[in-house]
Amino acid sequence: MNNSSQGKATIPFTEIFDLKSGMSPSRPSTKRLLSQMKGMYTDKAAFDSDVANGDPVVYEFYELSLPHDPGELLFGTSIVYPGKVGEEYYMTKGHFHTILETGEVYYCLSGQGFMLMENPEGDVRIEEFRPGAAVYVPPRYAHRSINSGNEPLVTFFVFRADAGHDYGTIETKGYRKCVVERDGKPEVIDNERWKA
Amino acid sequence: MNNSSQGKATIPFTEIFDLKSGMSPSRPSTKRLLSQMKGMYTDKAAFDSDVANGDPVVYEFYELSLPHDPGELLFGTSIVYPGKVGEEYYMTKGHFHTILETGEVYYCLSGQGFMLMENPEGDVRIEEFRPGAAVYVPPRYAHRSINSGNEPLVTFFVFRADAGHDYGTIETKGYRKCVVERDGKPEVIDNERWKA
Repeated sequence: MNNSSQGKATIPFTEIFDLKSGMSPSRPSTKRLLSQMKGMYTDKAAFDSDVANGDPVVYEFYELSLPHDPGELLFGTSIVYPGKVGEEYYMTKGHFHTILETGEVYYCLSGQGFMLMENPEGDVRIEEFRPGAAVYVPPRYAHRSINSGNEPLVTFFVFRADAGHDYGTIETKGYRKCVVERDGKPEVIDNERWKA
Repeated sequence: MNNSSQGKATIPFTEIFDLKSGMSPSRPSTKRLLSQMKGMYTDKAAFDSDVANGDPVVYEFYELSLPHDPGELLFGTSIVYPGKVGEEYYMTKGHFHTILETGEVYYCLSGQGFMLMENPEGDVRIEEFRPGAAVYVPPRYAHRSINSGNEPLVTFFVFRADAGHDYGTIETKGYRKCVVERDGKPEVIDNERWKA
C-alpha cells in the first residue's frame, strides 16, 4: 500500500526495496548525473571530459512523501555506482539536515565504501560500509556516501521526516577531506579546494 | 566504534548486523522466552505445556544505548523464531511507543510473516513481511511482528531514540486480532480475550 498524503493521519504501508540492488519494483528513483555535481570533484579536466563523454549516472535514490512531522520517519535506498573522476571515487553530494540536530541511519545492503561526515565545528569522521554495516550519522554531521568498490554501493536509510536536506552549505564550502584511489587503495586526503 | 554515552554529543559509529541472520558478532542480544509472554497466547494449555517442555526462545533483538533525544535514532535487528503455541504463530510482545506520536520502520531481511498494528481508536492494520519489504509503522500504532514461515523472521528497525516502549497497555488489553494457522495457511481472527 502506498501513502503520500500530506497533513493527514498516516496509515501503515509497505515499500519494496530489493535487498541486493536496492531497486524498487514500483517507484521511480531520483537520478544524479555527473553534470549535476559541478565543482564537487577535484579534477576539473577529468570531470569535464567525463560529462562530455556520456554524463554518467553517479547515484540514484528513492524519496517518499510523508507529512513533515517530527514523529514521522522517511526511508529508502541509495545506490552509488562504482567509478572515479580522476582519482576521486564516485560519491553523493551529501548534505546537512536543515534541522541540524537530527541524525540518520544507513544500513549497507551491498557493495563497499565509506560514509564521510563532518560537523560545523570541523570534526571529520569516516566510517566504512560493507554488507551488514549499520552506520549511524549523529545529529549535526553532514554526510556523503563514497563507493570505493567495483559494484554498486547500496544502503537503506532512515531519518526524521521533518529533517530536511541542506545541500547548499556543503556545496559552497565543500568537505574538508576527499577519498581517492592511490596505488589501488582508498586514501583519505585533504580537499585542496575546501573553503574555511 | 561503539558509543553508549548518555547526555554527551554523539559521534558516528558502526554496528554490524548480519544481513541474513540479523545477528551481531560483538553484542549480546535480549532474548524473550515463551514464559515471559504469559497471557499473550490464546491456547493456555499449549502455552503451559510448551513452557514446561523447554521454554523456548520466541524472539531476540538488539538494543543500543543513545541519549533519549528526539534528534537521535535507535536501530537494531529483531529475530522472531518459527513456531506456534497451539495454532497461534510465534510473535513479539509488541508495544506502543511511550511518545505515541512517533513512528518506526521495519525492513525485512529474511523470513516471512506479518506486522500487526492497531491504534488507540481501534484501527487494525496488517502488513506482510517478506525479504525486501520495508513496513512503515506510523505514529500512534502499537506493533507486533509475527512469524508465519519456517525460518527466522529477521527485520532491521529504526525509531526515534526518545520514543520509549509502552508494553503495559497492550499486555493488559491485548490486541484485537490474532494470526493463526488453519489448513496450513495464516488466518486473521478476532482475539477472544481482547478487553475493551
